[in-house]
Amino acid sequence: MISVTRKSHFNAAHRLHNTEWSDEKNDKFYGLCNNKNYHGHNYDLEVTVKGDIDPESGYLVDMKVLSNIIEENICSRFDHKNLNLDTSEFKNLIPTAENIAVVIWSILREKIDKKLELSIRLFETPRNFVEYSG
Amino acid sequence: MISVTRKSHFNAAHRLHNTEWSDEKNDKFYGLCNNKNYHGHNYDLEVTVKGDIDPESGYLVDMKVLSNIIEENICSRFDHKNLNLDTSEFKNLIPTAENIAVVIWSILREKIDKKLELSIRLFETPRNFVEYSG
Amino acid sequence: MISVTRKSHFNAAHRLHNTEWSDEKNDKFYGLCNNKNYHGHNYDLEVTVKGDIDPESGYLVDMKVLSNIIEENICSRFDHKNLNLDTSEFKNLIPTAENIAVVIWSILREKIDKKLELSIRLFETPRNFVEYSG
Amino acid sequence: MISVTRKSHFNAAHRLHNTEWSDEKNDKFYGLCNNKNYHGHNYDLEVTVKGDIDPESGYLVDMKVLSNIIEENICSRFDHKNLNLDTSEFKNLIPTAENIAVVIWSILREKIDKKLELSIRLFETPRNFVEYSG
Amino acid sequence: MISVTRKSHFNAAHRLHNTEWSDEKNDKFYGLCNNKNYHGHNYDLEVTVKGDIDPESGYLVDMKVLSNIIEENICSRFDHKNLNLDTSEFKNLIPTAENIAVVIWSILREKIDKKLELSIRLFETPRNFVEYSG
Amino acid sequence: MISVTRKSHFNAAHRLHNTEWSDEKNDKFYGLCNNKNYHGHNYDLEVTVKGDIDPESGYLVDMKVLSNIIEENICSRFDHKNLNLDTSEFKNLIPTAENIAVVIWSILREKIDKKLELSIRLFETPRNFVEYSG
Repeated sequence: MISVTRKSHFNAAHRLHNTEWSDEKNDKFYGLCNNKNYHGHNYDLEVTVKGDIDPESGYLVDMKVLSNIIEENICSRFDHKNLNLDTSEFKNLIPTAENIAVVIWSILREKIDKKLELSIRLFETPRNFVEYSG
Repeated sequence: MISVTRKSHFNAAHRLHNTEWSDEKNDKFYGLCNNKNYHGHNYDLEVTVKGDIDPESGYLVDMKVLSNIIEENICSRFDHKNLNLDTSEFKNLIPTAENIAVVIWSILREKIDKKLELSIRLFETPRNFVEYSG
Repeated sequence: MISVTRKSHFNAAHRLHNTEWSDEKNDKFYGLCNNKNYHGHNYDLEVTVKGDIDPESGYLVDMKVLSNIIEENICSRFDHKNLNLDTSEFKNLIPTAENIAVVIWSILREKIDKKLELSIRLFETPRNFVEYSG
Repeated sequence: MISVTRKSHFNAAHRLHNTEWSDEKNDKFYGLCNNKNYHGHNYDLEVTVKGDIDPESGYLVDMKVLSNIIEENICSRFDHKNLNLDTSEFKNLIPTAENIAVVIWSILREKIDKKLELSIRLFETPRNFVEYSG
Repeated sequence: MISVTRKSHFNAAHRLHNTEWSDEKNDKFYGLCNNKNYHGHNYDLEVTVKGDIDPESGYLVDMKVLSNIIEENICSRFDHKNLNLDTSEFKNLIPTAENIAVVIWSILREKIDKKLELSIRLFETPRNFVEYSG
Repeated sequence: MISVTRKSHFNAAHRLHNTEWSDEKNDKFYGLCNNKNYHGHNYDLEVTVKGDIDPESGYLVDMKVLSNIIEENICSRFDHKNLNLDTSEFKNLIPTAENIAVVIWSILREKIDKKLELSIRLFETPRNFVEYSG
């Protein structure tokens, strides 16, 4: 088994806010991330697939195909968007890095060959990242 | 003459929109950056001061003092903010990377010893940055 | 299960020297790292915790809380220190990257919720790092 | 168990071409990577070994020894080479990142103490990498 | 005056060889870079333009337009190519990093508004780069 | 005119202390950097030379020769050393980043062809650096 990882990126605005909590609790819990006017990040995404090398082509997966899947399903969906307002995925889900990672994984899991294990790493900033593999 | 550079960072949301243009012109010119619900970036900031080494201390400038000036005047002002809505500087100025760089330089120029030359480099993403020195 | 990683850093001096070996053996084995007057590094630390997302907050862990734990227990203890002379942990333990990683993990393990798996990555230089997960 | 990772690098030319396929199929499948005159990369290699710390030295492995093994067996073999033409390993094996990773792992596996687990990460570009652990 | 920089990249093979020198002199002077079967690099390119901010748009230059100019004139020309064999520019010019930088600058100078100063930085590896501004 | 830059690195311990000041003043002014037992850094060094391309070789300077000059005169002198105790240069000069940069520049200026302009950039940490060009 071998794994191949492809990096991509998108820029988005978001706000962390639990609508079932009071404004005071949101402010205390999420701090600056609760700013009602949103803030934003350059999200760096690493998508890793794991499986067996195809002996004929020498590829685990065609990196260009993988790159296109990521571009069409993730980057074009989230890039230059307000995650809270512009996307259906985060209408009722708080766009923490953890939740964004799970959403991205779930979208990609539908698009990538089931024979391949899938995991992702999402950098919210260069100083913190989340990893999820289902 | 020697220069010393200090890196810092802030995360913010913004939107590029000229209120004197039609929505069509804004959309055509700024593209995705015109998204009415904002998007965001991790801004990385490099502040450079240039001058003569103080022979007694061996410092051009105390890096901790410089770091505090940047933190108090730039990061605390812009971090986790919506540049268009939450800051007075961009109420009537479009927050392009170029304009943000000029604003940061102007704020810091007031706070840093006039004997020192000042220049800044602002990364909007890891793939593009702006430099300004007055 | 999801994991969240936070990066931090500290700068320290150290010397690799086994007091039970002769000076010749120390010099031959550790080479430049045995320099009796110490040398130093910028240590970059990545702390990873793994567990379940809290569905209410969307957090695995509050990154700010995690960051404070690292700052108070690791960075303030080791930053700008001589690991051999200034810290109790390395009075009788050789401060190799491996041993530093184990010490950091053990300190953090006491401070981080036992429900969370803990692992760390410690860069001694940008070209070599150590990983430990208990 | 602890792991230690060492980074190194080599620059090489290669071409992806399956001699059992028609030129049309090669061109369609490998795209630009099939260019008959070769193209090239700065390959960044991370070699990770895992095992127990030697309590006497505080080392899992002497990083200098590990570095020399990588230099002598991998870098000096592949650096500034055309992988297809200049190396015996890829005379009959397509030098995809996946195959290069497996070859490097197999070479190193022979040279590194069997008590240590071995895995490698090979960056073909800063945007894509392969991981293999046997 | 402000400057804006955009990063891009291409992967290519090359060989350093002066056809007017003997093979012995080429081998002695260029060393491994003279390998007759070529080697290669991931070239990272930074293109910087300098001028005045347009007060209406807040842009010095539209980064997307600049990015497209670089893509169409540089990356599509050199990416996944053998610089010596596949490009007219290096048929009779040795593709050292210095010469590649001058060629890239000259191509871009024709395509970028003459009111803007132009300079480029070309990384041949993460450890060495060339800068040229005409 | 074109410039070529080469990166290298060394790891060292140091202490900032002015022997003509009281301990109190040193502690207040230099803070943690005054720690009497030293601390340390991974210093990253970029050496830039500027001049005309030799039309025959296509080189401004042979990077391998430049790299050897840096290795022999800077890295082998400072790597794994205590700058205060192990080097003649900082016996009576406080090893601030600024002073280290001036010392490195002065050493290299003697060894590099006078036709070439010389400048250096020294990173004390990934977050701060100094530039000097004589």
